[in-house]
Amino acid sequence: MQTKLTKLLGIRHPIIQGGMAWIADASLASAVSNAGGLGIISAMNANADWVREEIRKCRTLTDKPFGVNIMLMSPHVEEVAQMVAEEKVPVVTTGAGNPSRFVKMWKEAGIKILPVVASTALAKMVERAGADAVIAEGGESGGHVGDLTTMALVPQVVDAVKIPVVAAGGIGDGRGLVAAFALGACGVQMGTRFLVADECTVSAEYKKKVLAAKDISTMVTGRRLGHPVRAIKNTYMNAYAKMEADSNIPDEQLEQFGVGSLRKAAKEGNADEGCFLAGQIAGMVKRAQPAREIIDEIMAQAEKMMEGVRWDV
Amino acid sequence: MQTKLTKLLGIRHPIIQGGMAWIADASLASAVSNAGGLGIISAMNANADWVREEIRKCRTLTDKPFGVNIMLMSPHVEEVAQMVAEEKVPVVTTGAGNPSRFVKMWKEAGIKILPVVASTALAKMVERAGADAVIAEGGESGGHVGDLTTMALVPQVVDAVKIPVVAAGGIGDGRGLVAAFALGACGVQMGTRFLVADECTVSAEYKKKVLAAKDISTMVTGRRLGHPVRAIKNTYMNAYAKMEADSNIPDEQLEQFGVGSLRKAAKEGNADEGCFLAGQIAGMVKRAQPAREIIDEIMAQAEKMMEGVRWDV
Repeated sequence: MQTKLTKLLGIRHPIIQGGMAWIADASLASAVSNAGGLGIISAMNANADWVREEIRKCRTLTDKPFGVNIMLMSPHVEEVAQMVAEEKVPVVTTGAGNPSRFVKMWKEAGIKILPVVASTALAKMVERAGADAVIAEGGESGGHVGDLTTMALVPQVVDAVKIPVVAAGGIGDGRGLVAAFALGACGVQMGTRFLVADECTVSAEYKKKVLAAKDISTMVTGRRLGHPVRAIKNTYMNAYAKMEADSNIPDEQLEQFGVGSLRKAAKEGNADEGCFLAGQIAGMVKRAQPAREIIDEIMAQAEKMMEGVRWDV
Repeated sequence: MQTKLTKLLGIRHPIIQGGMAWIADASLASAVSNAGGLGIISAMNANADWVREEIRKCRTLTDKPFGVNIMLMSPHVEEVAQMVAEEKVPVVTTGAGNPSRFVKMWKEAGIKILPVVASTALAKMVERAGADAVIAEGGESGGHVGDLTTMALVPQVVDAVKIPVVAAGGIGDGRGLVAAFALGACGVQMGTRFLVADECTVSAEYKKKVLAAKDISTMVTGRRLGHPVRAIKNTYMNAYAKMEADSNIPDEQLEQFGVGSLRKAAKEGNADEGCFLAGQIAGMVKRAQPAREIIDEIMAQAEKMMEGVRWDV
């Protein structure tokens, strides 16, 4: 299935793997790229040396295109931005802002740039700055979330920009991929379903929680500090929500409480103190599978639905 | 276009108009039904006499099927439930709970029952109780909202029940209708787009606000009291949000603050003190049109996209 996204990135299937902090490393990224999607390494808050090592590891594991997700609020963002240009990674996705100051450097390095956006205003801004496509992410996704949902955001972004639009948030199977096409997107980004990929190095407890999740198993906290995140309900999330609702607890204390919780979930598998980021479609994720099987299953379902369809995706 | 929904309800187009309190009256409902959709009269918190009068008025305006939306938390719910059975209205949709105690009476009156649900658990419960279909509504909708979004909720409800599923929330055009089909729904319920229908008797200020809305123009308040509602950002909503975040303000004061705000928006057009319920696709609603034109436009767009498609919707 060829779409504007597969043509833009030179990939086989219109599926990008989300850049999940503490999770999306060379192992998962290379598996997704080898399966015909676009694997992504998360640069999260890491320094350039760590990210460079993952990039080089990824290159030993795949000869297919892959990308790096750069969190624009990272304290190491300048050195990481420079490094990915030196390494000439095929694709960069960005989160938490407008990457315009890096666009020239990345373009000169031949990098395709796909910022994640949560509003039409940011989509228009990054299009003007030179982005090759945008990833319109709805608030049903895991991790940092915006207010708009995929169903409402994607068609509005499609109407607002001329560059290709990728849908993210709430997509876990072939039905979601076809729905994204219907809304005007040319591909999807998925995180949650890849959490249980065999090649995903996240803790066993994390995978267990995703596989056990129901539709209502996630919640959002962090709105008060302006950085809402969606994660699976547990002791940590409930405690955070309770503190957040108490306006007598100062912001600093709340901020402090969250420190280390992602690492505790992803690396240590600390069931109670970890923050297990996941999207609302966790309830649809029922089986651990190799990344290739996940992608093949989604594509088979979508291709069957798309038989006879003549949309320009 | 025939779907499980058009066959179940005996309507021409798979579009149900949302049952908006203070807004969805005989005028709008009959216009939507005459245009081939399913018009809905909102029983809101009104008594049986008021609702009966709207039903009879609707019958003078259309000979097509229409429905009544019954809010299960209404103080008048028992008498309204009884009255719709006496009146043998063709369809009842329900909100805010499980209508199981009325199912037998309504079935005997030949009424089709479509509860609005926000989770797979409630969907399964109402299916067991005898519902004919469910309306799975995502939190991008206007008015009372659940946590799950349309993109995440609809396929999970489709997998959880055997009865037909209608998608609601975030749907404003033909693309949304086709996306709903892709997710496994057999029709949609739309509220926001019908707010600006010529036959909608809501205040001029309300229509103005919807037409001026952008993608990010709505917000949710009321989570603290367990009844979150989505509405257009204005003086009222900002003030409510501020009070809600202050845990030194007692719940009673918050509750009191909201009283009358829907009426002020819908009937008085009070720009600052009204609560202008609307969904996230308000940003996509750009023109006031007759209900028939809205429906025809959506169907033409969807039918063009569905050419050659062989989905079982």
